[in-house]
Amino acid sequence: MFTSTTQIRIHYALTDQMGVVYHGRYAEFFEIGRSEAIRNLGFTYKDIEAMGVVMAVVEMNIRYLRPIRYDDLITVKTSLPHLPADHKIVFHSEIYNEEDQLLSKGTVTLYFLEAKSMKKINMPTPLVNLLEGYY
Amino acid sequence: MFTSTTQIRIHYALTDQMGVVYHGRYAEFFEIGRSEAIRNLGFTYKDIEAMGVVMAVVEMNIRYLRPIRYDDLITVKTSLPHLPADHKIVFHSEIYNEEDQLLSKGTVTLYFLEAKSMKKINMPTPLVNLLEGYY
Amino acid sequence: MFTSTTQIRIHYALTDQMGVVYHGRYAEFFEIGRSEAIRNLGFTYKDIEAMGVVMAVVEMNIRYLRPIRYDDLITVKTSLPHLPADHKIVFHSEIYNEEDQLLSKGTVTLYFLEAKSMKKINMPTPLVNLLEGYY
Amino acid sequence: MFTSTTQIRIHYALTDQMGVVYHGRYAEFFEIGRSEAIRNLGFTYKDIEAMGVVMAVVEMNIRYLRPIRYDDLITVKTSLPHLPADHKIVFHSEIYNEEDQLLSKGTVTLYFLEAKSMKKINMPTPLVNLLEGYY
Repeated sequence: MFTSTTQIRIHYALTDQMGVVYHGRYAEFFEIGRSEAIRNLGFTYKDIEAMGVVMAVVEMNIRYLRPIRYDDLITVKTSLPHLPADHKIVFHSEIYNEEDQLLSKGTVTLYFLEAKSMKKINMPTPLVNLLEGYY
Repeated sequence: MFTSTTQIRIHYALTDQMGVVYHGRYAEFFEIGRSEAIRNLGFTYKDIEAMGVVMAVVEMNIRYLRPIRYDDLITVKTSLPHLPADHKIVFHSEIYNEEDQLLSKGTVTLYFLEAKSMKKINMPTPLVNLLEGYY
Repeated sequence: MFTSTTQIRIHYALTDQMGVVYHGRYAEFFEIGRSEAIRNLGFTYKDIEAMGVVMAVVEMNIRYLRPIRYDDLITVKTSLPHLPADHKIVFHSEIYNEEDQLLSKGTVTLYFLEAKSMKKINMPTPLVNLLEGYY
Repeated sequence: MFTSTTQIRIHYALTDQMGVVYHGRYAEFFEIGRSEAIRNLGFTYKDIEAMGVVMAVVEMNIRYLRPIRYDDLITVKTSLPHLPADHKIVFHSEIYNEEDQLLSKGTVTLYFLEAKSMKKINMPTPLVNLLEGYY
């Protein structure tokens, strides 16, 4: 299974008046995790868009277990339990604090789309080639 | 069942370079829907915080069915299928465009917490009183 | 001089842990003010983009006089002291609370650009026609 | 003069449909630059808040010289031309791309406030001590 981790320092803009990170901002942590996961494969999401392909989010599920606070250094662990067989890809994400406590977990489902037509297409071959060794 | 609708005009900041609203921003549409739902009951979330109570999001699930675009005037329909019996409240949200097409749907689960201790507490009585006629 | 006002209700996402609206979000209030000002002229910024023209922000200056808080209903007053003579347009914005106290003021300078080439162009004629009666 | 640099990778959420970073997000780059500058002094903004002091933004000026794009790795250079003599501190920020081109520059003026009373106070002594060697 392909797995990747990246770290994010929480800046003030992400907090709300409850003194914690606003729940809507977690989508960005997962996004950064996915981007860095693809970069770790030797590819970038920018390369994917340059191929005329976009990845559109179709579903997101998040569980908030412990609050994330200002100046926390969080670790986002992104994994891909299954190698996509078609246009659909499901990333699993977990967020940990510096004490290795699980703060949040979630899944994000995306479709590969041809940018021009916005029609579903299979995962691009270069990505398949980079990923299939992990499964 | 208690239901409420509110409208939101999409401004530029909400879009991303795919030319649609960034998926992470939908949490804000649902939040605005919940706030306006509570206001329609004759209460505000600000009143709830003034009572020493906060509502913490513990889970969020979103399905993205059709893109939302710049300058769209969306309608957020917020409903509460069940009257909360304890500290847990689950809001259902749907987003429609001006042609009444369903663009997105989701659920957000929150816990009522005592602000001082951050311990779970039952839904405050004034809210119970305002809601129970709907069930 | 052309002037327009619009109202915005402050939602939770805009606050930070200082208990006020994060200073970086004011740019959005000014943006909404500009959009609604153009809409009040009988045009939309979306129409401008449909003409192959974009408006790029080149400078922004903001003074923060009094804090804006959660659930505040603010009024954004947008004015155009001078009719643009070329590619440059300068909007002045003021934000007021419900007691009509001035909370913030700022200016945003934008250039009209041809979207294809990103080269400076004069303000589109339909906008000139709608505005010149005010000066 | 005290100067500090930090790097930021641009994620998708920061872009808008013009294909560049939304102008309102630059405030966050400057904020991250200030935080890391204070951290480089051996202090954190979190420590400042723990002392019962907040730093409130009272003015921000930004010039946008060249666009910032998705996946760009930007360098934020933060400097403090003058050692504060009272409650007022003015940070200068510059943003560079990987080719060392200047993309944006700005200033942010903040006041030191006692958190409890929100009254102006002088810059806390521990910060003065850490900074005065640079002037």
